[in-house]
Amino acid sequence: MDEHIYRVIQIVGSSEKSIDDAIHVAIARASKTLRELRWFEVVETRGHIANGKVQHFQVTLKVGFTLD
Amino acid sequence: MDEHIYRVIQIVGSSEKSIDDAIHVAIARASKTLRELRWFEVVETRGHIANGKVQHFQVTLKVGFTLD
Amino acid sequence: MDEHIYRVIQIVGSSEKSIDDAIHVAIARASKTLRELRWFEVVETRGHIANGKVQHFQVTLKVGFTLD
Amino acid sequence: MDEHIYRVIQIVGSSEKSIDDAIHVAIARASKTLRELRWFEVVETRGHIANGKVQHFQVTLKVGFTLD
Amino acid sequence: MDEHIYRVIQIVGSSEKSIDDAIHVAIARASKTLRELRWFEVVETRGHIANGKVQHFQVTLKVGFTLD
Amino acid sequence: MDEHIYRVIQIVGSSEKSIDDAIHVAIARASKTLRELRWFEVVETRGHIANGKVQHFQVTLKVGFTLD
Amino acid sequence: MDEHIYRVIQIVGSSEKSIDDAIHVAIARASKTLRELRWFEVVETRGHIANGKVQHFQVTLKVGFTLD
Amino acid sequence: MDEHIYRVIQIVGSSEKSIDDAIHVAIARASKTLRELRWFEVVETRGHIANGKVQHFQVTLKVGFTLD
Amino acid sequence: MDEHIYRVIQIVGSSEKSIDDAIHVAIARASKTLRELRWFEVVETRGHIANGKVQHFQVTLKVGFTLD
Amino acid sequence: MDEHIYRVIQIVGSSEKSIDDAIHVAIARASKTLRELRWFEVVETRGHIANGKVQHFQVTLKVGFTLD
Amino acid sequence: MDEHIYRVIQIVGSSEKSIDDAIHVAIARASKTLRELRWFEVVETRGHIANGKVQHFQVTLKVGFTLD
Amino acid sequence: MDEHIYRVIQIVGSSEKSIDDAIHVAIARASKTLRELRWFEVVETRGHIANGKVQHFQVTLKVGFTLD
Repeated sequence: MDEHIYRVIQIVGSSEKSIDDAIHVAIARASKTLRELRWFEVVETRGHIANGKVQHFQVTLKVGFTLD
Repeated sequence: MDEHIYRVIQIVGSSEKSIDDAIHVAIARASKTLRELRWFEVVETRGHIANGKVQHFQVTLKVGFTLD
Repeated sequence: MDEHIYRVIQIVGSSEKSIDDAIHVAIARASKTLRELRWFEVVETRGHIANGKVQHFQVTLKVGFTLD
Repeated sequence: MDEHIYRVIQIVGSSEKSIDDAIHVAIARASKTLRELRWFEVVETRGHIANGKVQHFQVTLKVGFTLD
Repeated sequence: MDEHIYRVIQIVGSSEKSIDDAIHVAIARASKTLRELRWFEVVETRGHIANGKVQHFQVTLKVGFTLD
Repeated sequence: MDEHIYRVIQIVGSSEKSIDDAIHVAIARASKTLRELRWFEVVETRGHIANGKVQHFQVTLKVGFTLD
Repeated sequence: MDEHIYRVIQIVGSSEKSIDDAIHVAIARASKTLRELRWFEVVETRGHIANGKVQHFQVTLKVGFTLD
Repeated sequence: MDEHIYRVIQIVGSSEKSIDDAIHVAIARASKTLRELRWFEVVETRGHIANGKVQHFQVTLKVGFTLD
Repeated sequence: MDEHIYRVIQIVGSSEKSIDDAIHVAIARASKTLRELRWFEVVETRGHIANGKVQHFQVTLKVGFTLD
Repeated sequence: MDEHIYRVIQIVGSSEKSIDDAIHVAIARASKTLRELRWFEVVETRGHIANGKVQHFQVTLKVGFTLD
Repeated sequence: MDEHIYRVIQIVGSSEKSIDDAIHVAIARASKTLRELRWFEVVETRGHIANGKVQHFQVTLKVGFTLD
Repeated sequence: MDEHIYRVIQIVGSSEKSIDDAIHVAIARASKTLRELRWFEVVETRGHIANGKVQHFQVTLKVGFTLD
């Protein structure tokens, strides 16, 4: 976080594997349309259950990116 | 909330009639430019008062939509 | 919310009919002794239950009014 | 809330009609298995969207009931 | 989260391995007595330390299940 | 809080005497039907007033117990 | 909390003796000018320290009273 | 904060100049009708925008004053 | 806040001078691409430190603007 | 709270007797190594249960002390 | 915030002049005994009032510094 | 959490690998200077992004240790 101006958006990633992977998925998707992503913060960690097991994890992130 | 990736935005709708209607107004407006809206969450319920009566309700929503 | 100075008070309204009506009841009561009510914000929504049904809704509001 | 001891549970009701109706639905369901329900508090108000419209409202309640 | 009515309970799972595993443990245990578990939300992540190392992770979850 | 799995419930105790006593009352009542209570956390402290005096204290607790 | 309309105010009581006593002090003072006090909720518990000991406890309360 | 009993009110001040000035404005106004103001706490900092510039800052304060 | 529909975004401004200036910087930047900005709310105030001094303030704002 | 600069630390005291006593225990311990303790604030009140009874109360405090 | 490990402490600075100055005061004091301060976050903004005017501002900060 | 008195500190660990690893890193570092660490609680999970990927995770912990 240096002297730039940032915009902050919220994005939700999901993964059958892990919380960490759901974060990677969300950031990979955001980086397809937004350059200069700089930091994230976990807002909420949820998930779906099917047949008594975690079906997938869902992690909501705030993601900050630099405005030129 | 299935396996997709979501973007979450905040929008404020208002209505002279009711809290429910302010939610309908906000979602109708958001759906004009965003397809694939999937869920909402009420963040804040406020309103304006004039002449000792509710002039209109204002409801702030988080709205999630699917990123392809 | 323009350039005025506001005082903010908390008031609880109740209604057998609906959440919206409990808000109308609270503001109608406040306007009997306070002029220049300008806005409200819902702080809490509760209610009483009797015989397995909602007996009445109780909505706690912050209400702002202009100080001359 | 008098001198009794209460247990507090969380329940989510849903309705295509309104927030108020989702609360009625949740309490009606809870009262099928629990007698002596006494009060509720709204914890969260969410909903699903389909085709750009509210499909149904979902309201999460804390519900208190008397332990004998 | 479709049109059903849910009950929400809190459960704490622990694991020596990871946060993800503590979630799996909690849900596996809950599914032994409750059918129709549908979603979870992480409320709190804590743990115990012994000899300067994480002894086990403890994750508190809200878990929602369908009421018939 | 060792390696066990816990269920967490909410219970409200009341006492005319003190906050501490309202906690004792809540836990004594919970222990009549639940074995293996292990910890509690105070969520909310309220009370009723009559004739300008505290009529009774009401303390809401989260209570954790071991699942076998 | 029955069908009445309430006003809610905040008041801070202090006592050298105990938290409970600081609550009694605050409510006794409020009842000197306000009739029909009905309930309170503890918002914050603080205190002052002198010579390594608690000098007095300070408890901030929300207090609700009936509006006729 | 010594041994006195306090009442706490909320007030909103605004200023075209700065956050600090909005606080001064709020307290100057409160002191016109209330003697013995002792402390304040910032609850919320907002403002209005016109023509792409801050039109005025609005600061909501809790203000405590001694009850005799 | 009148009867319009608003979109709310988050933006972070920074300034070596002051908190107020960081707010001005954020809003000036947002107004370059968004017309009809109407209000802001401070979400978080942070900053960087170098050589034992504040290097710059960083203020996170929610900013609301009218949707036509 | 006068013009001094404070450091704020967190400490957890426990007592078999009461919440008040757990606060006294925490402050007595802190005062053994820190002079100039000035105020405290209760952050969390928890406790352990054994054989269906409160085994001890645990109170987490923020404690402020003057830096010379 | 790079790859280092940080310790986070809380400190309260005060100033008769402004909120910004109270932050400068707190950080200048912390830097007398702690090297490698890197960032701060405002936790709470309060102040004292005397004779109907702000006597001084008090700002509570979380301050992070690098552990070697 | 038994009958001891605890001090609670905040520490931030980081890891390129995972959230779990950032926790291990923070606790390993804290145990170099503090004996008798007993528990931790996750306060915040953040991270840095470079070239559209997570560069490292940063986890802020409260860590409790026994005071003799």
